[in-house]
Amino acid sequence: MKTHSHTITALFVGGAFLAGVSLLADEGMWTFDNPPLKLLQQKYNFTPSQEWLDHVRLSCVRLNDGGSGSFVSPHGLLLTNHHVARGQLQKNSTRELDYIQKGFFAATADLEMKSPDLEVNVLVSMENVTGRVTAALKKATSPEEEFAARRAAIADIEREGQAKTGLRSDIVSLYHGGEYWLYSYKKYTDVRLVFAPEQQIAFFGGDPDNFTYPRYDLDMALFRVYENGQPIESKNYLKWNPKGAQPDELVFVTGHPGSTQRLNTMAQLEFQRDVASPIGIRRLKQTLDVLKQYSAQGPEQARQAASMIFGMENGLKATEGGYKGLLDKSVMDKKQQDETGFKARVMGNPEWKAAWGGAWDAIADAEKKMSSRVKELSYRSLSSQFALTAMNIVQYVAEVGKPDGVRLPGYHEAQLESLKYRMFSPAPVYPAIEIARISGSLEQAFAELGSNDPFVKMALNGRTPKEAAAALVNGTKLADPAVRRKLVEGGEAAVAASGDPMIMLARQLDPMRREMNKWVEDTVSSVSQRASEQLARARFAAYGKTTYPDATFTLRLSYGQVKGYAMNGTKAPANTTFYGLYDRAQSFNFEGPFDLPSRYKEGRGKLDLSTALDFVSTNDVVGGNSGSPVINRNAEIVGLVFDGNIESLVGDFVYDIDTNRTVSVHTAAMTEALRKLYGAQRLVDEILAR
Amino acid sequence: MKTHSHTITALFVGGAFLAGVSLLADEGMWTFDNPPLKLLQQKYNFTPSQEWLDHVRLSCVRLNDGGSGSFVSPHGLLLTNHHVARGQLQKNSTRELDYIQKGFFAATADLEMKSPDLEVNVLVSMENVTGRVTAALKKATSPEEEFAARRAAIADIEREGQAKTGLRSDIVSLYHGGEYWLYSYKKYTDVRLVFAPEQQIAFFGGDPDNFTYPRYDLDMALFRVYENGQPIESKNYLKWNPKGAQPDELVFVTGHPGSTQRLNTMAQLEFQRDVASPIGIRRLKQTLDVLKQYSAQGPEQARQAASMIFGMENGLKATEGGYKGLLDKSVMDKKQQDETGFKARVMGNPEWKAAWGGAWDAIADAEKKMSSRVKELSYRSLSSQFALTAMNIVQYVAEVGKPDGVRLPGYHEAQLESLKYRMFSPAPVYPAIEIARISGSLEQAFAELGSNDPFVKMALNGRTPKEAAAALVNGTKLADPAVRRKLVEGGEAAVAASGDPMIMLARQLDPMRREMNKWVEDTVSSVSQRASEQLARARFAAYGKTTYPDATFTLRLSYGQVKGYAMNGTKAPANTTFYGLYDRAQSFNFEGPFDLPSRYKEGRGKLDLSTALDFVSTNDVVGGNSGSPVINRNAEIVGLVFDGNIESLVGDFVYDIDTNRTVSVHTAAMTEALRKLYGAQRLVDEILAR
Repeated sequence: MKTHSHTITALFVGGAFLAGVSLLADEGMWTFDNPPLKLLQQKYNFTPSQEWLDHVRLSCVRLNDGGSGSFVSPHGLLLTNHHVARGQLQKNSTRELDYIQKGFFAATADLEMKSPDLEVNVLVSMENVTGRVTAALKKATSPEEEFAARRAAIADIEREGQAKTGLRSDIVSLYHGGEYWLYSYKKYTDVRLVFAPEQQIAFFGGDPDNFTYPRYDLDMALFRVYENGQPIESKNYLKWNPKGAQPDELVFVTGHPGSTQRLNTMAQLEFQRDVASPIGIRRLKQTLDVLKQYSAQGPEQARQAASMIFGMENGLKATEGGYKGLLDKSVMDKKQQDETGFKARVMGNPEWKAAWGGAWDAIADAEKKMSSRVKELSYRSLSSQFALTAMNIVQYVAEVGKPDGVRLPGYHEAQLESLKYRMFSPAPVYPAIEIARISGSLEQAFAELGSNDPFVKMALNGRTPKEAAAALVNGTKLADPAVRRKLVEGGEAAVAASGDPMIMLARQLDPMRREMNKWVEDTVSSVSQRASEQLARARFAAYGKTTYPDATFTLRLSYGQVKGYAMNGTKAPANTTFYGLYDRAQSFNFEGPFDLPSRYKEGRGKLDLSTALDFVSTNDVVGGNSGSPVINRNAEIVGLVFDGNIESLVGDFVYDIDTNRTVSVHTAAMTEALRKLYGAQRLVDEILAR
Repeated sequence: MKTHSHTITALFVGGAFLAGVSLLADEGMWTFDNPPLKLLQQKYNFTPSQEWLDHVRLSCVRLNDGGSGSFVSPHGLLLTNHHVARGQLQKNSTRELDYIQKGFFAATADLEMKSPDLEVNVLVSMENVTGRVTAALKKATSPEEEFAARRAAIADIEREGQAKTGLRSDIVSLYHGGEYWLYSYKKYTDVRLVFAPEQQIAFFGGDPDNFTYPRYDLDMALFRVYENGQPIESKNYLKWNPKGAQPDELVFVTGHPGSTQRLNTMAQLEFQRDVASPIGIRRLKQTLDVLKQYSAQGPEQARQAASMIFGMENGLKATEGGYKGLLDKSVMDKKQQDETGFKARVMGNPEWKAAWGGAWDAIADAEKKMSSRVKELSYRSLSSQFALTAMNIVQYVAEVGKPDGVRLPGYHEAQLESLKYRMFSPAPVYPAIEIARISGSLEQAFAELGSNDPFVKMALNGRTPKEAAAALVNGTKLADPAVRRKLVEGGEAAVAASGDPMIMLARQLDPMRREMNKWVEDTVSSVSQRASEQLARARFAAYGKTTYPDATFTLRLSYGQVKGYAMNGTKAPANTTFYGLYDRAQSFNFEGPFDLPSRYKEGRGKLDLSTALDFVSTNDVVGGNSGSPVINRNAEIVGLVFDGNIESLVGDFVYDIDTNRTVSVHTAAMTEALRKLYGAQRLVDEILAR
């Protein structure tokens, strides 16, 4: 791996001068209120107009399944990744008809298939409310008071926003609390599947090829957004450019990067490296083992577990990649150097030092405390859909009776509609896999926390993990959405009276969850939020608003160039072709993740094999950007983000233009496949109509 | 890069027990007197018979251009790499007809084309002469005396061998002097080119793809060996298996690995890392720059320089890869650990300690002395064909008059025939490139050694580097082989009387060269040869002859398996296909090293694109193995070694089965291309005739 010369904090250390040096770096996930106009003009001689920015913003969507997407026709046609659509495909599948394996194409509009619980958000407006939030903190005399005041103010603003506009209203904390913004979203919940290819081509190469490049995946899916039973008129949509991205071309990615830790202090990075990552990786591996054992029992079990395994393998590879970055001495040295420079600047100014100089130690102290309880915080929970739903119901009925400002996170007024949508989802829950998952969680908790841990005692109640899991799952009626709805509608009384074993366990566990939650808030979050806000102010004071905030699963603009890179002793090309798909499948003898759908084996002769399939660009993206459109200067769609290369996994902490690459499906490949292999001419006509 | 767990010295540390651990490693370049029969039987349940071994040995050849090859028909048809044949192709090319670019195919036998100076050796017999060499050292009282006695004994044995058998007779020092063997070679010098593809397909991907995998090269060439104007009857030849290597199959590589340093002491490795590699890399880069500047002057200059640039880029990438390995702390830690264990074993035995315990310090001391003069040893020479020939002539006439045993290395009786073959080569020497090269060498020497260095003074003689180079090259007549022959035949008198400026300069430089040579022998070589022999004896005493000797450009047997590997976050497949060739060409838009010959662009439809093209195996090879056959249990040829992957470049020092891979051309691809693209049915018939 190359040295990491273009870290974001390098911007801070040298201020104006170094900011100049990093101008060429293509780094950054910029908010739409602060697009990198200067950098764009300097490197690419292009300045997007406000109309361009508004149009692009309104053409993009966020999906509550954790990805991004964009409108690609005026009739609500929405492009995202197959792997973002995967959960919905699975929920619509049955033992007899597995849409993940077979793919799906609605040959006519009336066959477009409703998604059980997919929600789509369009960012309609953004309002800086930093003043209001910070004003609310003025009277607080301790971090805990500040924390409560902040939360109350945020809930107030969200609730007011929703009441005023009817829009989903979220407060977004940027720059670790340096700014607070009210983001208002138009929300859609009638989202129908139009097209998805076979998993085998969408995720060709499977876990081995995941997060790597060269790559040969058609990781796409098309939904259509409806309202009142009709496709919406999506006035803002991205025009389809079937020639797709060209080498060296300037391209933008507009989507929702999930989370990064580029502004974190050394203490936070070290906590991540020494505590959080190791335990997180261990837990992921344990949970994955449970699912893999379940999956190995038969084809139906494999089908049920596939989406979860997929998500966990993905998460594990990403987490391990980031962890590897933290273990890289050159990365940490650079981070240390940056922090030392920033700190020296703050400490060198007596006023700044007095106001903000204690922040680093405060964070370090909070992380130390966090370490002391990290094990129980990690293992006192059940990996289970039933357990999650039960806990949601128990807490929901308690929280909605309280004033908005003092509720647990997730239960604020503005969040309730989306929460209920998920709680009442008709998506099937499979008892056998639930038993396996709960049993696995209990075994792990038992092994890690011991038999005397109160969580272990309550959940096992004298039974073995397997017995407890079976009793819970076989006894619960929560598989039925009507049962859940009835409990919620019955309020605290109904929940208190319930003899459902999952609800009973959730009631028992609730006080412990609240204690842990409060402890984290009082001991860690309140301290580090205050300290982070101090550091944000110090940063603005020292360097101005010259950079972008860490990712927060909100809409961002990234710019870059279609470009190969030095890889493993040679060069990775800017794009791959269908030739390469057949090379890789053939060279692995069509085995396992390298098999191809029969449509591709038999239809090879129909394809122009020289068509570009996937491509890489220097755009700075992370998880959450999946499904983001790649657009050119004309705001035409030329690609579809679906991954980052292995070198980009350190992107949680640093960006390096030499090796960091976004991996996208080329529009030429999507057009070619839709037309020649799927007979989806109606969709091709729709996206190509100008 | 993975940790390097399977180092050869691990064998030593634990002795019998650890030797057991490493049985599965596929490591080793074994001599034919000591094939790894036990390891083979244990891991692969296969024991080659003595007939098998003899047949394979006699089917293989060494080429004096620095590679390996094998007979693939009973009529002297010889398979090797295009990059081994490249020098001969260039020497036969003209401004009008560039065989490197166009390729060559002798459609009929009479069109087979003589190589200017290619020599082919077949290892006919091996005789252990360790006793005789060591007996000769008995009377010596100092390292210098030992050195002279050893050299004299070696020259005697070689001369006697040649006189007795008429065969080329070389003494080979194995295990750093632990054993001495007399290798007798049948030598052929009428070697005619039969087929070579276009460089663009033989070396597809160029310098970027060199030493990497996945790979898509048809790096092959066919010669035919003649004697007395007729093709020889090559009774021993490898039968052609057109299905080629299969995944997981046991395969052998039989060829001539050039040199490794796996038995070196830490002091030697550190010298390599801290002194030799950095200066070697710097020199290579400087020399490469000179050639690239020359090459940029026009297409004819590019043609003349291409082979040299090719060789130097290749060498540079290999050297840098090895250097990177030495900079890898985990490699050096492992080496240190191995040495510590070996040393403890020797020092723990009073007798061993007295006999051999001083060897490590002796070597360290010699390396320290070497460092003091490494700069002048590196820069006091001219990178030039004329300069080399002139020095050869000047030294030749002086040396042949002396007793064999005291001659300079390279001028012993047994070596003269091959030397004369090279000295009198009719291959063209291009004056303009000679001027560029000499001028470059002089500029570098001037910059590195200063104007007062005696070499710089003699060579420049008051002129600028450009002036001196032009005067030397324009004045010399050495381009004419007859002139060279006349000087050699005229002996010392003719050379002393010559007014040829290249000869005059060589005469002037000769004493300095001899002084440097003698200093290295007396101060470094004699000490470290003695110490290395001591360590070899210590090793045999401590562990027995359980391992293989370092590579010495002599025939070795390597065994392994056709197998992909973990690469860059994913898996590299066991083999590639023609699909991948077109993918990579297309994805780089057929530019530069990724262009394809028009035969391939236009003939794509003729090929079965799913045919295996290149493949990887765990065989342990290094440079010099180029052109080696890959054979299966039946001694059928299933592939042709042409490279190692980037992870194998550390192979000079360690072998790691997880990542070290040999890269070979698949016989299926060779058969497919010869038949369908080159219309070489006469060759296909010849190799497939059973």
